[in-house]
Amino acid sequence: MSAPIRLALIGMGKIAHDQHVPAIAGEPAIALAATVSRNGEGVEGVPHFHDIADLIASGQGIDAVALCTPPQVRRAIAMQAIQAGWHVFLEKPPGATLAEVANLESAARAAGVTLFASWHSRYAPGVEPARAALADARIDRVTVTWREDIRVWHPGQAWILDAGGFGVFDPGINALSIVTRILPRPFFVTEAELDYPENRDSPIAARIAFTDDAGLHIAADFDFRQQGPQSWDIVVETDRGTLTLHDGGARLVLPDGSSPTKAAALHGEYAGLYRRFAELVRAGESDVDIAPLRHVADAFLRGTRNVVDAFIE
Amino acid sequence: MSAPIRLALIGMGKIAHDQHVPAIAGEPAIALAATVSRNGEGVEGVPHFHDIADLIASGQGIDAVALCTPPQVRRAIAMQAIQAGWHVFLEKPPGATLAEVANLESAARAAGVTLFASWHSRYAPGVEPARAALADARIDRVTVTWREDIRVWHPGQAWILDAGGFGVFDPGINALSIVTRILPRPFFVTEAELDYPENRDSPIAARIAFTDDAGLHIAADFDFRQQGPQSWDIVVETDRGTLTLHDGGARLVLPDGSSPTKAAALHGEYAGLYRRFAELVRAGESDVDIAPLRHVADAFLRGTRNVVDAFIE
Repeated sequence: MSAPIRLALIGMGKIAHDQHVPAIAGEPAIALAATVSRNGEGVEGVPHFHDIADLIASGQGIDAVALCTPPQVRRAIAMQAIQAGWHVFLEKPPGATLAEVANLESAARAAGVTLFASWHSRYAPGVEPARAALADARIDRVTVTWREDIRVWHPGQAWILDAGGFGVFDPGINALSIVTRILPRPFFVTEAELDYPENRDSPIAARIAFTDDAGLHIAADFDFRQQGPQSWDIVVETDRGTLTLHDGGARLVLPDGSSPTKAAALHGEYAGLYRRFAELVRAGESDVDIAPLRHVADAFLRGTRNVVDAFIE
Repeated sequence: MSAPIRLALIGMGKIAHDQHVPAIAGEPAIALAATVSRNGEGVEGVPHFHDIADLIASGQGIDAVALCTPPQVRRAIAMQAIQAGWHVFLEKPPGATLAEVANLESAARAAGVTLFASWHSRYAPGVEPARAALADARIDRVTVTWREDIRVWHPGQAWILDAGGFGVFDPGINALSIVTRILPRPFFVTEAELDYPENRDSPIAARIAFTDDAGLHIAADFDFRQQGPQSWDIVVETDRGTLTLHDGGARLVLPDGSSPTKAAALHGEYAGLYRRFAELVRAGESDVDIAPLRHVADAFLRGTRNVVDAFIE
């Protein structure tokens, strides 16, 4: 077996500590070689740098970086990493705009490094079995309900409701990353309604309708104001009955009532992502599926806007 | 020479009558074989149909369609045409969403027909000389000013300020189609500010900042409320002086003060578009550059929103 990929983790916020650090620790093909953060904390025993320029200047041996910064600042850091000859793993969403992601893809190709636009929800245990079950079904209707409490899940992450922070599409894009994976045909936004808090620049709730060439109805309900029970559910009505993905894809119930998934470990998705990243690096390939981000941009482009109550964390 | 391409013109509104009909009449490789419109008027001596289903059912000999309908309804008509085995010319913008354009591109490829996403402003006489002049210049700053009076240029076109009608980006995307053509490197939205009339669902004005990997500043000022003199100008400051495209690309002034363009005929752009479409059909190729539409989607995705005075036509 070859030496592990020496990885620098950049942007040491909540997702880096909660998910990336444990997933890297559990993946033998990858070694955490540095952390980089202006404000966040490092990891005991691992060299820490203030920014990527410091890391590059240090001469520390690095093969790859994983970017966990907010999307608004990701492009410039990713480009510096590519120019340093490093492979790049992008936390979702892969950027603040579609054009910058297309440019990173071209730059990575020209530099001969791997670019991985990660969608962690696609690694939830129910997703691949759902995809297989739907491959040859007639699909009649899809209902996506993604309602979570922003105060519980995103404490102190004010950037999410800033312009370019995606608002409720930050969790909603996880749902879209699953739906684009499990449905056999592409689909398109036909209508969208976005609710903006009067004091913020990104939507706190959104309702989106999609269709496909066969006239399928897909309805998505995203809401960041959910209190009490939380919902991350995708219900697919088919000619064989109803298939349901619960808990963000962790639990699948097939039309016959059987459930091929068990409750997944909290770190299961990110373990799958890092395994995939190591495979891509070893194979000299990239994986940049922009479909989920494109649907979000299309919803903003196509949507109507409501102003709703101010959001005060 | 082979027989002319028998073309059906679909969506007989202002742009079809003002631009498409005369351009087709002047292009020997294309013959106007039918018009299709629910409300608009046809052309004397040319068979007219209510919708594309009627046209298909009629058995009229058709090789290609040009779609001049509002973007919100274009996808379904384009797909019917592709499934009928016809080549498709899309008036700008090529669709209401990026996902639907990607799907049309796949469908056209699978059906072996030409798909042409047209950007008429790229055929303005100053554009190619500007591109050549900028190919090896150091570019320091780009300023785009696109200010026109919606009441003068879009009378009765209420769909433009509906959701999905693009608002001021309907003309603004023309500027972006030029800038993406003349600048040698790709660029990305970094900030955008969109002004929504309180009674409408699309912006009536927008200011957008872009950058590229070299840190270039590009500023665009789009406004639909311009009275008095109208502006469709692109100013490019370079190490050799300032290059300016006036009048939507019709007139170019080079840094040395010379002007390689003369005032262009009104129909010059569309003549170039139909010549290009005929070439693509003969060659069995497609041309779908989504860069201008992607920048518009990115501006919506990344932008902040203001509510401004109601717009009453």
